[in-house]
Amino acid sequence: MSFSHRLVLSIALSVLSFSSLSQQSAAQQAPFTQEQKETATQLMETALKSELGFDIVESLTTEIGPRLAGSEAEKRALEWGVELGKELGFDKVSIEEFTMPFWDRGHLHLLMNTPYKQELHATALGGAATSEKEIEASVVYFRDIHALAAAKDGSLKGKVAFVDGDKMVKSQTGAGYGQANQRRRIGYHHAERAGAEALIVRSVGSSSHRFAHTGMMSKNGDNWATIPVVAISNPDADQFRRLHNLGESLSVSLSSESKWKGDVSSGNVILDLIGSEKPEEIVLIGAHIDSWDNGTGAVDDGAGIGITVAAATLISRLPKRPKRTIRVVMFGAEEVGLLGGFAYAEKHADNLHNHVVATESDFGAQTIWQLVSNVNEEATVLIDEIAKILSPIGIVRGGSDVPGGGPDIIPMQQKGVPTIRLNQNGRDYFDLHHTPDDTLDKINPDELAQNVAAYAATIYLIADSDVNMKQ
Amino acid sequence: MSFSHRLVLSIALSVLSFSSLSQQSAAQQAPFTQEQKETATQLMETALKSELGFDIVESLTTEIGPRLAGSEAEKRALEWGVELGKELGFDKVSIEEFTMPFWDRGHLHLLMNTPYKQELHATALGGAATSEKEIEASVVYFRDIHALAAAKDGSLKGKVAFVDGDKMVKSQTGAGYGQANQRRRIGYHHAERAGAEALIVRSVGSSSHRFAHTGMMSKNGDNWATIPVVAISNPDADQFRRLHNLGESLSVSLSSESKWKGDVSSGNVILDLIGSEKPEEIVLIGAHIDSWDNGTGAVDDGAGIGITVAAATLISRLPKRPKRTIRVVMFGAEEVGLLGGFAYAEKHADNLHNHVVATESDFGAQTIWQLVSNVNEEATVLIDEIAKILSPIGIVRGGSDVPGGGPDIIPMQQKGVPTIRLNQNGRDYFDLHHTPDDTLDKINPDELAQNVAAYAATIYLIADSDVNMKQ
Repeated sequence: MSFSHRLVLSIALSVLSFSSLSQQSAAQQAPFTQEQKETATQLMETALKSELGFDIVESLTTEIGPRLAGSEAEKRALEWGVELGKELGFDKVSIEEFTMPFWDRGHLHLLMNTPYKQELHATALGGAATSEKEIEASVVYFRDIHALAAAKDGSLKGKVAFVDGDKMVKSQTGAGYGQANQRRRIGYHHAERAGAEALIVRSVGSSSHRFAHTGMMSKNGDNWATIPVVAISNPDADQFRRLHNLGESLSVSLSSESKWKGDVSSGNVILDLIGSEKPEEIVLIGAHIDSWDNGTGAVDDGAGIGITVAAATLISRLPKRPKRTIRVVMFGAEEVGLLGGFAYAEKHADNLHNHVVATESDFGAQTIWQLVSNVNEEATVLIDEIAKILSPIGIVRGGSDVPGGGPDIIPMQQKGVPTIRLNQNGRDYFDLHHTPDDTLDKINPDELAQNVAAYAATIYLIADSDVNMKQ
Repeated sequence: MSFSHRLVLSIALSVLSFSSLSQQSAAQQAPFTQEQKETATQLMETALKSELGFDIVESLTTEIGPRLAGSEAEKRALEWGVELGKELGFDKVSIEEFTMPFWDRGHLHLLMNTPYKQELHATALGGAATSEKEIEASVVYFRDIHALAAAKDGSLKGKVAFVDGDKMVKSQTGAGYGQANQRRRIGYHHAERAGAEALIVRSVGSSSHRFAHTGMMSKNGDNWATIPVVAISNPDADQFRRLHNLGESLSVSLSSESKWKGDVSSGNVILDLIGSEKPEEIVLIGAHIDSWDNGTGAVDDGAGIGITVAAATLISRLPKRPKRTIRVVMFGAEEVGLLGGFAYAEKHADNLHNHVVATESDFGAQTIWQLVSNVNEEATVLIDEIAKILSPIGIVRGGSDVPGGGPDIIPMQQKGVPTIRLNQNGRDYFDLHHTPDDTLDKINPDELAQNVAAYAATIYLIADSDVNMKQ
């Protein structure tokens, strides 16, 4: 979004507050009063002109930097979150600690040895094991995860497996990720069964640059990997494929220090704006504060922290607190298994019935294009109405039976908390996600401001409503 | 250029050969015959449909990979060039060896230590020295090369200097490179004078990704650097700048194995199509076969090798050789100081008067948009006419007094060889140039084919002409 686009939106919003809203003022059954609608519209106008969201991401990524789950850096990030909440004047600020196992990446070196020496741009995958010694081995090429799955038990002894695959399909919804992700998630289950010394996979992300895409693997039953598992960048995987197709024999040397290092503490930071009439009822928004350690976690998920904290802050500056409590949760340790999300759902198990709705911003910083929900019938009408109010900033109403408010919301959603989601355009998200290239300069401040506008209006309207959302 | 764009060009060329060309057929003074013009147009049509140029780059970057000047890999590349010339049926194929000093990059490790630990994406600059031991030092920030130049003698003892600067301005002509390049070229002259332990510079290239830009430094009098000198990526430099502006103290640890390793051999590969009437007269086109070792040298300068070899090959498939000899030179060791260019000019010093014109393709693989020249008055009219013939593929006539036919042409141009240049759109070139991201996938085969078309037509017309070009 350009600055002039922002202006157009501002004008559209001004017109809205003087025309379409007043046309509806006579309707007694409307879920929102004229005043509430005007307040929501004013919040959007303010948000579009505000730099607060971007400033928060800039502070987090610059002053804290990369923040691997469970690391000293994540601890500094949690303290930063507490300080930020206090500075911005939230009514209540706290940390809820939890214990977690710590996986550390350590140093990785991966070199193609034959047909000639070439450094490969690679990264260890989360949960991968250390190489006891430098591995020097020939590479067995598998066109995709299905080919590797068909490898016979013990057939890869003394070898390194390479799983190619198709480059992730780019889409607005990020739909290509799950499919591409299989080789990262469970590739090692097959490689270990077949006896491989190590596994190399084509990166899962859509980046055409020479960045490897990291991310957590899935346990094999109760166990993590016993071999090194690494991803190489798409251009490096292309080179492997071309060499393989030429009939060349590939070999590599690989050493990796990745390992599990025992239990450490992490935590969730909770920022509350206490409701003026129903303080016990909680409207929860959040994002995760940990990041992978190869970038500085700007789009994943510094952006979400900036968006949700800024949205709540703009609401806190209204003359009056909304009826219900607005809670911003900065979840810890999301990347390594939604640990903050699970810790929250467990700690607040007895109070989840008081959670009106929950949602998380964790899909980058591009513009929001759709509002989906999974709430009861009466509340669906309310969400329909919110979508109309968001329409001038380019948002359409999506499905009303779409569960899942974001990764860290899953554990509480599974326990019955209703969800909504403001879907962002994720077309370019996987170009950056989990790579060294996830840095502040990749965020367009105007697009991020549109996110803040959508969150501020939506959350204000729900928090100032009396409608129950439980199904 | 899209496939449909290719089709449009093909149609435009067909129309040209039946209309505008025939209108001029009566003009006796025209530098080219109707048959020559039609042949040139047919060469363009063939080139736009041919994949030969791209196939050559694919072969070089896949089968040989990175090819640092003077390395074993460059030797393999030279052998590859000889084999390619033979396979493609050139009349004469040879290697002209020369001796050169070998600088090897070795391993580099650069970590920001304070205000927190973060890996920096960095690369040693060509000619930089080894760190005798791990350097642990605080960083002194300089906003630009001018600020560093003002540092007092001895004022940086025990420190590491960081030279920031403005990110390179992107342009079609690449005009921003020279200015940005000062910090890379001569930054260390000032840092050494001021007593710094090492120098870090903001990368010179225009990439917004986390890739550091390498490249050769300039000697300080007769000497190369005595300290490690490294570039960090633009996003890392942005982070340094933001932290500095926040008043944070920066420190780093740095170790580098870069060093000079004595004399080795390199060479130029010469592929000749012997002229049918004036075999002693040489029309020289070329590109450099060495590359920096961090990428696979696709746009710099595998593309140039593909373009010039394919263009000459298409000419070789005409029913008759042009009157003059067409020589393709694959220059060795360009990146480290135009060593192949100097070796050629020296070895052929006694025969440079027989070089009709020389030009090099060394600016990537985007489309050519302009034809410039530096030839005598009569030949200028001929180049004007060639520009008209190239017009349907999107090329305009530029200056007729523009010296310099490309880096490796400079040494022979200084000895009086006339030059032309087919200027490519270089807007995105410095996003890739000298970085790990310079890989095959970054080349658009259609754009590269347009280059082959332009070279084939231009070189054919000059080689089949009798016009002398000397000024």
